[in-house]
Amino acid sequence: MPSIRPVLMCGGSGTRLWPVSRKDRPKHLIPLVDGRSLLQETALRLKPGSQGPDILAPVVITGAAQADEALEQLGAVGITPVAALIEPEGRNTAAVAAAAVAWSKATGDEALLLLLPSDHQITDLGTFRETLAGAIDLAQSGRIVTFGIAPSRPHTGYGYIRRGEAIGAGFAVAAFKEKPDVQTAAAYLRDGDYSWNAGIFLFDPAVMQRELNHWAADIAAGASRAVEKARRAETVWELDREAFAATPSQPLDIAVMEKTGCAAVVPVDMGWSDVGTWTSFMDVLAKDEGGNVVSGAVHLVDCRNVHARSTGPMTAVVGVENVSVIVTDDAVLVISNDRAEDVKAITSTLAEDGWDHLL
Amino acid sequence: MPSIRPVLMCGGSGTRLWPVSRKDRPKHLIPLVDGRSLLQETALRLKPGSQGPDILAPVVITGAAQADEALEQLGAVGITPVAALIEPEGRNTAAVAAAAVAWSKATGDEALLLLLPSDHQITDLGTFRETLAGAIDLAQSGRIVTFGIAPSRPHTGYGYIRRGEAIGAGFAVAAFKEKPDVQTAAAYLRDGDYSWNAGIFLFDPAVMQRELNHWAADIAAGASRAVEKARRAETVWELDREAFAATPSQPLDIAVMEKTGCAAVVPVDMGWSDVGTWTSFMDVLAKDEGGNVVSGAVHLVDCRNVHARSTGPMTAVVGVENVSVIVTDDAVLVISNDRAEDVKAITSTLAEDGWDHLL
Repeated sequence: MPSIRPVLMCGGSGTRLWPVSRKDRPKHLIPLVDGRSLLQETALRLKPGSQGPDILAPVVITGAAQADEALEQLGAVGITPVAALIEPEGRNTAAVAAAAVAWSKATGDEALLLLLPSDHQITDLGTFRETLAGAIDLAQSGRIVTFGIAPSRPHTGYGYIRRGEAIGAGFAVAAFKEKPDVQTAAAYLRDGDYSWNAGIFLFDPAVMQRELNHWAADIAAGASRAVEKARRAETVWELDREAFAATPSQPLDIAVMEKTGCAAVVPVDMGWSDVGTWTSFMDVLAKDEGGNVVSGAVHLVDCRNVHARSTGPMTAVVGVENVSVIVTDDAVLVISNDRAEDVKAITSTLAEDGWDHLL
Repeated sequence: MPSIRPVLMCGGSGTRLWPVSRKDRPKHLIPLVDGRSLLQETALRLKPGSQGPDILAPVVITGAAQADEALEQLGAVGITPVAALIEPEGRNTAAVAAAAVAWSKATGDEALLLLLPSDHQITDLGTFRETLAGAIDLAQSGRIVTFGIAPSRPHTGYGYIRRGEAIGAGFAVAAFKEKPDVQTAAAYLRDGDYSWNAGIFLFDPAVMQRELNHWAADIAAGASRAVEKARRAETVWELDREAFAATPSQPLDIAVMEKTGCAAVVPVDMGWSDVGTWTSFMDVLAKDEGGNVVSGAVHLVDCRNVHARSTGPMTAVVGVENVSVIVTDDAVLVISNDRAEDVKAITSTLAEDGWDHLL
């Protein structure tokens, strides 16, 4: 059975987990789970040598500003990447996939590539690894395998995948669907043939190379040249600035997956969250009997469905339902769990009101 | 028309406004209203020379630990007390009333005394001063006048006063009632003859002296001796420790008011709150169109009936109803407005859990 080489995508920034995430402190690097970051959690989930499929040391793809901290965090949990590809600037996931397959080619690495975001949470590790093992045959047979999450509500923040005919451990992909409106999302939920697109891909690098060459030749060529001309120091590959900057910026879904005939989907229910909001994070965390999640110096009294965490002042919550209370040294957010998407309403007004330093 | 001498009672401590109030930072000294403390607000409400009845410079009665700060705060708003009586220890309100009348006698002060807590809020200043003016005749005729607040809900945290026959600007008191259970409070509310006991008293010192001598002779004698033997330096009177310690500790309501035949009540609706809890404080504060009250570095988005204040980290509240969010440098409280009495549930567990320093 072939091995799996994880490719951890550590890019991007954002403030949807404000006040914990900040512009210069992206969410995959923040301690969020028992003192570990989502990057550490993601890497540990794929730790080489653990049971299940044969998983190799990961490749990390990250921006220059975050590279040192990312590698330090991985070292702290005993993970040594086989390579760190440093992006001079972000060029979206198609360029990342193209750089990863170019790296495989350049190093003669024959493993299947598992391309995945490093800022998601998956709580059911057993199911995750079993599903990976089951997807290997599909990837070996020339499929680009995506993992489809069983939708639990009509979420409008995710792309959807409609399954077609059964193949192996999964299904051919009948269609990728962009983020739907709420009526469409509700129809998808009723239909039963739709999964959330988790943005996790397992593939043979030669297959991805072929499909990139066919559907997104500019991206394949640009990323490949950026890898060939990379400045290397031990395991660090600084992608060539000029070549990478010239590579078109597109999501892999749009550049390849929506067009290729070889996409497959493996539906899986594994306690997945993209940790896109405080509420979607809370969804996959262990709760007390009142449905509450706490972290840090927090006291709850008679609460239900409360997510309370503090890395700053001691925080007490009394008689409250369905609210998240997020406390840091310099900011406090109290937000209805139904309004988690609206953190941006705060972060956008903070700048106007002279609180830029809190973003 | 005789003058009124306010006697500001600045005693006690408590943590019902935790995390803002602390054991060593009682609530009358904390900036709560536009940067001013309730003591400052109370004194300004009775500032000599303002319109309405003839109000003289106040007497302040306070504990030794708080005296300096109390006098400093009064000075900061331009109030110079005619005397500061320093209690070596707290002996409750009957001893305070007895000390005040002893001070009047010792100094030959002939004004009516207005004995009132310095940790209440009254927002309708015009009504307050009109009501005081109207009560002067009653006090001059030998009544000990209490001010009765029109109850707005079946509050179980206050004593109640039942009015009897009409006299002058008010009524004879038919009965003082201790804090009732909720059924009894609801019955009082329906009845219409009951007011909340605000703990504010207007009286001729000679009348109070006579009633104290009759109903509480030990208290009258002890407090009087403590004043006679006080160590005086300019306007500061340090009540004699031994004499005051020997004075029985009782509320004025129990020692005198429930027994005397000369109690009167003047009902008044003046935006009064005892600021006993965050919710009762919120009740009398100015609100925005969503019913919200904010103070300090606070951002609200789509909130209703939210009371948010911060003297610490910037605080954002999104999509929440009927909750108080109170933030200081070292503690955060998020509490349902219906549960304001339960702050004690937090403060009592904090000690057990090693957070004593936050009390």
